[in-house]
Formats: sequence, C-alpha cells, structure tokens
Amino acid sequence: MTLVPLMLDLKGKKVVVIGGGHVAKRRVDSLLDTEAFLTVISPKLIPELIHHHEKARIDWKQKYFSPDDVEGAFLIITATNNRTANRIVVESAPSDCLINAADEADAGNVHFPAHFERGKLTVAISTQGASPLLAKKIKKDLSCQYDERYEQYLDFLFEVRQLLKQSSFSHQERNNYLHKILSEVYLDPQTQKEMLHSLEHYIKNIN
Amino acid sequence: MTLVPLMLDLKGKKVVVIGGGHVAKRRVDSLLDTEAFLTVISPKLIPELIHHHEKARIDWKQKYFSPDDVEGAFLIITATNNRTANRIVVESAPSDCLINAADEADAGNVHFPAHFERGKLTVAISTQGASPLLAKKIKKDLSCQYDERYEQYLDFLFEVRQLLKQSSFSHQERNNYLHKILSEVYLDPQTQKEMLHSLEHYIKNIN
Repeated sequence: MTLVPLMLDLKGKKVVVIGGGHVAKRRVDSLLDTEAFLTVISPKLIPELIHHHEKARIDWKQKYFSPDDVEGAFLIITATNNRTANRIVVESAPSDCLINAADEADAGNVHFPAHFERGKLTVAISTQGASPLLAKKIKKDLSCQYDERYEQYLDFLFEVRQLLKQSSFSHQERNNYLHKILSEVYLDPQTQKEMLHSLEHYIKNIN
Repeated sequence: MTLVPLMLDLKGKKVVVIGGGHVAKRRVDSLLDTEAFLTVISPKLIPELIHHHEKARIDWKQKYFSPDDVEGAFLIITATNNRTANRIVVESAPSDCLINAADEADAGNVHFPAHFERGKLTVAISTQGASPLLAKKIKKDLSCQYDERYEQYLDFLFEVRQLLKQSSFSHQERNNYLHKILSEVYLDPQTQKEMLHSLEHYIKNIN
C-alpha cells in the first residue's frame, strides 16, 4: 500500500467516530479544532468524551452502530474495542468514503500520522504501522529541534511573503528576500521586527 | 483554516488533474505509485506527461475542462495557468470531493505537503503556504538526518514487531524489545541481523 501524505481541511464535513473509549477520545481530540461535524456513536462514553458532549463539541448517538449512522459521512473512524464490530463498520461505509480503522490501519484508507504543530508549521511522521514508537520518538526529537520559536517565526515568514506580494519588487528581488529570511538569525523576534520595519519602509518609498 | 495531516490510500480512486504543464506533472509524479486512476484534462501536454500517457500511466482527455470530467472524482487537482479556469473547476466539483488548487491552496480543501520517504517512513512538512521555501529547507535537512539507512531500519522494525506479535511473550517483554530496538545502534544492518537471529531462536525455543 502506498500512502500519500496530505493536509485536509475538514471544516463542515461529517465525521463519524464509532466507539466511546480512549481510542475514540484520541481521534476526537485531534479533530476538535477542525470545525468538522463530529458525531460519536457508542452506548457509553468515557468521562472526557461526555465532557466534550456537554460542551457541545461533539454529537453523541447513545446506541450501537447501524449502517445509517455513516450515511453521507466524509470520514469514518472505527474505534471500538471489538475487531468484528469495526469490520462491520468498514463494510457499511459508503464507497469513496474516507475510513480510518484505528485498530487495524490497513482495513481503512486513512492513517493518522504522528505530528506536531508550531503555528502554521506542521511536521507529520508515519511509519505505516512498522513502528509507532519510532514515529513517537522522531516526533519528540523534532519538536525539540523545531521549538516554540517557530510559531512566531512562521507568522513572520507569512507576513514578509504577503508584503512582497503587494510590492513592486522584481521576481529576483522577492526571491532574495525569501531566501534571506530562512537564515536562523530570523528566529529572533527582535531581528524579525527590524526586518519587517525596514521592508515596510522600503516598499512604501519605492511603490 | 485548520488542516489535519493524514496519510491516504488512493488505490483505485479516480483522480482528475486539470492542466497539462509543469504543475500538473509535479502532482502526477507524486501520485504515480498510488495505483489511483489518473486522468489529465488538457488540450496540450508537456513531453514528460505525453511520455506518461504513452506508457499508460495516465489517461489523457485532450480537451478543455467541462464539469462532466470530474463526475465521480475522489480527488481533483486544478493545475492550469489560468486562475479563472481553476476557479470554474473548483465550483464544478461534486460536494465532499477532495480538491487541491495548486495555484491558490486555500481555494481547495487539500494541500500537498513537502515530504520525503525512507521505505515505510514518511516525513511530511507543511507551512500552510507561509513559506514553501522553509518547507523545502526542512525537508532537505531532515532527509539528511534520517538518511538512506532508515529504509532498511524500518523493515527491520516491522519484522521484529511481526515476530513479537506471533510470540508468546508478555506485553511487558514485547515492549522491552520494541523500546530496545529504537537505539541508534540498530541502524547498523549487522546488528539488525544478529537481533533477528537471536529473537527467532528465542521465540522458537519458548513457544
């Protein structure tokens, strides 16, 4: 199986999670910020999921799975502790639907890689199930390497790019700037500030 | 927009690429190994895409885009050099379809992150458009850090995991092994071989 790494916008999409335990919770937590419509199907929920339900972050159908639960679903996540039940869900899924089988990744067509975020920067690590522990280790190592400073740094890079787009600079001049700010000295907020000031000033005078 | 990093299996899915130039080629190249059904819609193709067509790696509809081209598509990629044409494609897309707008990522719901592979290991880097150059730089740095040895190392990790699953080891014993092989000494093929031999021998004797 060849898996393609993609970044998906799930805003407004119907996501159905079958199961109400810790695996379901982990998936729900990773999707809370996406503005997807999250529905959990399970006779029982662990307290953390009940809390999400009380805060109206998720819908809860307090029942066992039936095929109509996944009608119109964009993404289905099977997360019960019963492999047979999970398989029934996979078999009931609409064709062309995205399916993540949390207990048996190869039964679905979507894997959730380990990942971390620094604002606009996302680094995702997948071992296609060969070693979840290695994925976790690499994630830990890289989240030290690309530390908290990167969040602000990415905002800075974004801002410079927007300024350059509005400027009358030549393609070559823009490229020079975009390459220059890749230097690690720009991880420093003061250096970012000075660069932004000078760039704004420069653009104002030449435009 | 909050984007979720996912790994997708596109085997057997209909993927339609609108455009026949270098951007289209880059996307097609990144999807050739996926066993997706790739169709390119464009009056003209650059030679590399013609080559893919001649080798039956892609279908080619030699025409301008019309909405019926994307009926039943799982993933649509707009890659013409005309922003208006790209927008028309986005507006014609079936609801719940995945769309990558190569020239204007936010118009779609899918981004392609920078990434590299080492066999079963995939590391993907996205800056949500803030700095494609930074994504490229991080990709380069990390592909040195996680060098070619990782391909065989991932196969080794996978093999050990499979052996342990078949064994009668306790949960604790399995965990000890899985943690032990995360040590960098196991990047060495000879050390891998010795571990596999000793593990096979041990399992044979205790099972």
